[in-house]
Amino acid sequence: MNATELFSNIRKKTSFLCVGLDTDFNKIPKALLDFEYPLFEFNKRIVDATEDLAVAYKPNMAFYESMGAAGWMSLEMTVNYIRKNYPDIFLIADAKRGDIGNTSTMYANAFFRNLDFDAITLSPYMGRDSIQPYLEFSNKWSIILGLTSNAGSQDFQQLLCGDGKPLFEEVLQTAASWGTPDNMMFVVGATKADQLVEIRKLVPEHFLLVPGIGAQGGSLDEVFANGANRQCGLLVNVSRSIIYADVTNRFEISARQKAIEYRDQMEGLLLKAGLI
Amino acid sequence: MNATELFSNIRKKTSFLCVGLDTDFNKIPKALLDFEYPLFEFNKRIVDATEDLAVAYKPNMAFYESMGAAGWMSLEMTVNYIRKNYPDIFLIADAKRGDIGNTSTMYANAFFRNLDFDAITLSPYMGRDSIQPYLEFSNKWSIILGLTSNAGSQDFQQLLCGDGKPLFEEVLQTAASWGTPDNMMFVVGATKADQLVEIRKLVPEHFLLVPGIGAQGGSLDEVFANGANRQCGLLVNVSRSIIYADVTNRFEISARQKAIEYRDQMEGLLLKAGLI
Repeated sequence: MNATELFSNIRKKTSFLCVGLDTDFNKIPKALLDFEYPLFEFNKRIVDATEDLAVAYKPNMAFYESMGAAGWMSLEMTVNYIRKNYPDIFLIADAKRGDIGNTSTMYANAFFRNLDFDAITLSPYMGRDSIQPYLEFSNKWSIILGLTSNAGSQDFQQLLCGDGKPLFEEVLQTAASWGTPDNMMFVVGATKADQLVEIRKLVPEHFLLVPGIGAQGGSLDEVFANGANRQCGLLVNVSRSIIYADVTNRFEISARQKAIEYRDQMEGLLLKAGLI
Repeated sequence: MNATELFSNIRKKTSFLCVGLDTDFNKIPKALLDFEYPLFEFNKRIVDATEDLAVAYKPNMAFYESMGAAGWMSLEMTVNYIRKNYPDIFLIADAKRGDIGNTSTMYANAFFRNLDFDAITLSPYMGRDSIQPYLEFSNKWSIILGLTSNAGSQDFQQLLCGDGKPLFEEVLQTAASWGTPDNMMFVVGATKADQLVEIRKLVPEHFLLVPGIGAQGGSLDEVFANGANRQCGLLVNVSRSIIYADVTNRFEISARQKAIEYRDQMEGLLLKAGLI
């Protein structure tokens, strides 16, 4: 999927919602625990209940790895289920990997070839040759951490570099030169929405993956006002406040309801901006 | 294991060798492919052949994840095998993770509780709250990327920050304040051995995990001369040039021979420095 196709899906669904599948064994309804792969069963129900409202899903690797080989099976089954039933979904592996070249090639194989994700989140700390192997896959995306939504983003990302710019701006500018707006995005946290104005000057064309709405407190209106571009250019991720909207056996209905609220708000923003 | 116990193991084995288990399905002897878990079978033979020569093993997660659930099983079996048979081995998950707090907690559970690794490699880009959850496990270690061995380390790690110091020095100084020399180490590449002199001024007491010897061309003598401290303070990792020293069915013998060469060189250095 390229950027134009992604924007076309956003227009079709009047939504730029990404649902984060941070599927926690300890938080899903007890009734699912009797299944052999409870994380998959939960994901399947969430996806079936929200697929018309979201353009992307983002399984968070930590939650599957914490369940060992069975967790990895649930991840594989989730990816295969979405691929088979909802082929226009953009699938993001939230992995935040970053390693030397031959190791990056192995991760790229794991997530792009074996698992058929569209995109993977990556840490920029190890530089160009840690990202390059992912960019060599056609129709696959590298989503580089820029300015994250957590408190610790101030420790290094906001550190001023020699020319007076914060590190994350150096990362955006430098990394943008390695790829194109058709194979690279950046993570920018919704909790830093005021900084999106400057960020858009640096990377006007790239899609941004925006976490931090919902449980982390960012504002969707503010993110859109400061971050949208002529192709929308935003994938706003919501995890906990959708998938754990309700922890009873009615969880799918509540998740759908919450996703409708986000879709409606997004539809309003897209309309007002003349993008649909 | 704390730093004193690790140094005691180094003295006992006259070695500060860490063997990197970058176990590649496409590189291991064909005879092993008939087993249900070929990566484990390879690791078991490598470990049995070298355990008296190495103080640490470092499975590289990418190589297991690229094999899916079966790869994760091989990883679990490798960890359990080493724990059961060689309890004094220091076990490092080379994962280079780094994420927001609740996700870091899940990774910490995956690697420290479910898998019983002693240590995990972590990327500092997301700051303190991305590292903190790992530090909350007692007797477990966070190994923070400082200055890595690859070419891309110059893209951001060497970037000069406001006070004229390169980013990796900021990372070393800041991260060192979050933990202690008993629960934190730093990755410093052997290919940057000349910079170890300055690094030792910033973190005199911490162990350093040093990749880049062997296939990547770093010099062990130079690393030791510039990087050793009064508790040795070094774990030097060698992966490919030991585990793929020979790709025939004699691979264990060749791996052992190569590990003996490293151990002998390390023994000489430790002797000369009066550490054994």
